[in-house]
Amino acid sequence: MSPRADLKPRLYSPGPTEVPPYVLQALGSPITHHRSPVFSEYLMEVSENLKYVVKTGQDVYIILASATGAMEAAVSNLLSPGDKAICVRGGKFGERWSEICTAYGVEAINIDVEWGYAVDPAVIADTLKKNPDVKAVYTTLSETSTGIVTDAKAVAEVIGKTNAVMVIDATSSLGATPLLTDQWGVDVVVGGGHKALTIPPGLAFISLSEKAWKLTAASKCPKYYLDLKKYRSSLAKQTTPFTPGVNLVMGLRESLKAFREEGYNRTMRRHEILGEAMRAGVKAMGLEVYPKAPFNGLTAILAPDGMDAGEIVKTLRNKYGITIAGGQDSLKGKIFRFAHMGYADRMDVPLMLAATEMVLADLGRPVPEAGKGVGAAMEILNREWPNLASITD
Amino acid sequence: MSPRADLKPRLYSPGPTEVPPYVLQALGSPITHHRSPVFSEYLMEVSENLKYVVKTGQDVYIILASATGAMEAAVSNLLSPGDKAICVRGGKFGERWSEICTAYGVEAINIDVEWGYAVDPAVIADTLKKNPDVKAVYTTLSETSTGIVTDAKAVAEVIGKTNAVMVIDATSSLGATPLLTDQWGVDVVVGGGHKALTIPPGLAFISLSEKAWKLTAASKCPKYYLDLKKYRSSLAKQTTPFTPGVNLVMGLRESLKAFREEGYNRTMRRHEILGEAMRAGVKAMGLEVYPKAPFNGLTAILAPDGMDAGEIVKTLRNKYGITIAGGQDSLKGKIFRFAHMGYADRMDVPLMLAATEMVLADLGRPVPEAGKGVGAAMEILNREWPNLASITD
Repeated sequence: MSPRADLKPRLYSPGPTEVPPYVLQALGSPITHHRSPVFSEYLMEVSENLKYVVKTGQDVYIILASATGAMEAAVSNLLSPGDKAICVRGGKFGERWSEICTAYGVEAINIDVEWGYAVDPAVIADTLKKNPDVKAVYTTLSETSTGIVTDAKAVAEVIGKTNAVMVIDATSSLGATPLLTDQWGVDVVVGGGHKALTIPPGLAFISLSEKAWKLTAASKCPKYYLDLKKYRSSLAKQTTPFTPGVNLVMGLRESLKAFREEGYNRTMRRHEILGEAMRAGVKAMGLEVYPKAPFNGLTAILAPDGMDAGEIVKTLRNKYGITIAGGQDSLKGKIFRFAHMGYADRMDVPLMLAATEMVLADLGRPVPEAGKGVGAAMEILNREWPNLASITD
Repeated sequence: MSPRADLKPRLYSPGPTEVPPYVLQALGSPITHHRSPVFSEYLMEVSENLKYVVKTGQDVYIILASATGAMEAAVSNLLSPGDKAICVRGGKFGERWSEICTAYGVEAINIDVEWGYAVDPAVIADTLKKNPDVKAVYTTLSETSTGIVTDAKAVAEVIGKTNAVMVIDATSSLGATPLLTDQWGVDVVVGGGHKALTIPPGLAFISLSEKAWKLTAASKCPKYYLDLKKYRSSLAKQTTPFTPGVNLVMGLRESLKAFREEGYNRTMRRHEILGEAMRAGVKAMGLEVYPKAPFNGLTAILAPDGMDAGEIVKTLRNKYGITIAGGQDSLKGKIFRFAHMGYADRMDVPLMLAATEMVLADLGRPVPEAGKGVGAAMEILNREWPNLASITD
């Protein structure tokens, strides 16, 4: 939708998310050559800051691809056809792990989790006990299709006691919810730039623990562009194996500088407050939050009884200029999702809640008490936001 | 303030106002030469659309200057030292008329209006009767320092019966409140681009009626850069007398295209709804709107008793990333002003009201009922906004 004076475009979708001005400026800067010394400098700076975001001492590789590319690399580099892997499926992106495994001839043992719920670590423990030859467990940190967040620490503890590696797709939540990779013993982290890291789509990230690198030695899946050994040896020479996404890297550089300046713990707490305020607002206006273990960077809301959530999404886009997401697959028409991660501050919350209230009235289902949802959120924001300033790493 | 992920810059000041993406893109386009055929085309298109905004069949000249430059031109081109002019002073910008007249040796007969009130047309009629040799009456459409709007139609009716010309400074409201120049018989309109016309500061506008052009023939004030005859003869040749603000003109071109596409009447009604919703919200949260005849593009709010409005402005800027304006001169510390003109849609209203409520709580003066102000505004927005679509010129 092209902007108009009476209809500003506002992007609250779970990816791409709003790109901040300092990233836009970098994206619009004169392009540098990817084999120049200055680009090497940028690359090393970005890689160093990615380690800070991923909370790992391992290198984090940047792949010019959507995050699915990095997910594929996490299968094709670790496993071989005929290997066994556990795939936790509690939403659209958990299912993707299973599909990639199948595509490479890897035997996927699926743990199906009811949508809206997070996986129970005990179920993973049981499945591993029954299948001691499983080489990798594929999980999802935040299942963006349902708005849940996985207890990655508890899952890592279970998997860490076995020979299997833990792979986590953190695409939709990297930088918005804690993932203490090395400390918790998470082996492989997959991420993307166009969610909480605020760049346009195009860059995927992956890091591997020593335990995971050992697996790559035996891997027989075919790979070339996604061959992580190429990325490792190139980064050691301060470069990339293939042409990198130069201006995206330049944008990411600004985004990560901002992230680092704000600080990891403070950024996490900011998202926690945004999530809490949104959920309090939603409940105060008489609506229901869909996920049972909600991710703080996204609020998935159940449409009122008998109402098509798709209408809410469409009306917000066409009449309000606001882009959010509806439900996917079995949740289509049932939920609508506001993201509040990355470039998201406290004033986004009353705006999103007011939009929700207004669109419901527009569609003939006004909330019981005008402004109550916004009021409930503002009380939390007023109480908690000022404390952010004192949080350090 | 540089943007941060946790503190988005939001500009709600009465000028400069927020610049929309389509204008930013034009401002960032490769520059064209001002003596090229393509620039002439742009200039003529922009001039034509300015006539649409100013509601006049006369040419509207673009001066590369702040609006004060066009105000000065409206004195130095119409009058001579020793001439008499009436200056309506009901705020900072009315006073400026008087200062400019004095600087040129014009005798200023000042009508002092209590701040916060609009001028009574009967007082202008009386003053004209007592001073039949007055050549021009200088007025202000919206006194941005107090947030009032003048009844320009009634004032024009009074002045139209005399030999004096009516000059109106419409800088802060051109394009946000009706000014039917030819129909009402307003002689000289002064405008600026960085208010409701959504470009960065740099361009001023002026148009003259036939009656006003006649006055210019006798004018003996010295002038060169602001000599409107130069602008008239240049525009007849599709060019400008001096180097124009090329990229600002390119930005203005996009802004006016958007204005024209939305339509005059619809744009006026949009601002009316924004003003009404803001005022309803302010009152519902127990605050008082300062001006007695409020301009719809700006809401000037009285700070609660004993509170320094400057603290509200400072806190909104430093802690919320929101730029608004405080009071000027005698209103310093007493009022704070949110602009909602130009690039302003319905979702700006709950955001501005929520910010007001939050900052008051922050400063220890919470409103009686959380969310009530936002709720009251939303009810008006929900009722009135959908009707905009059916408004035509």
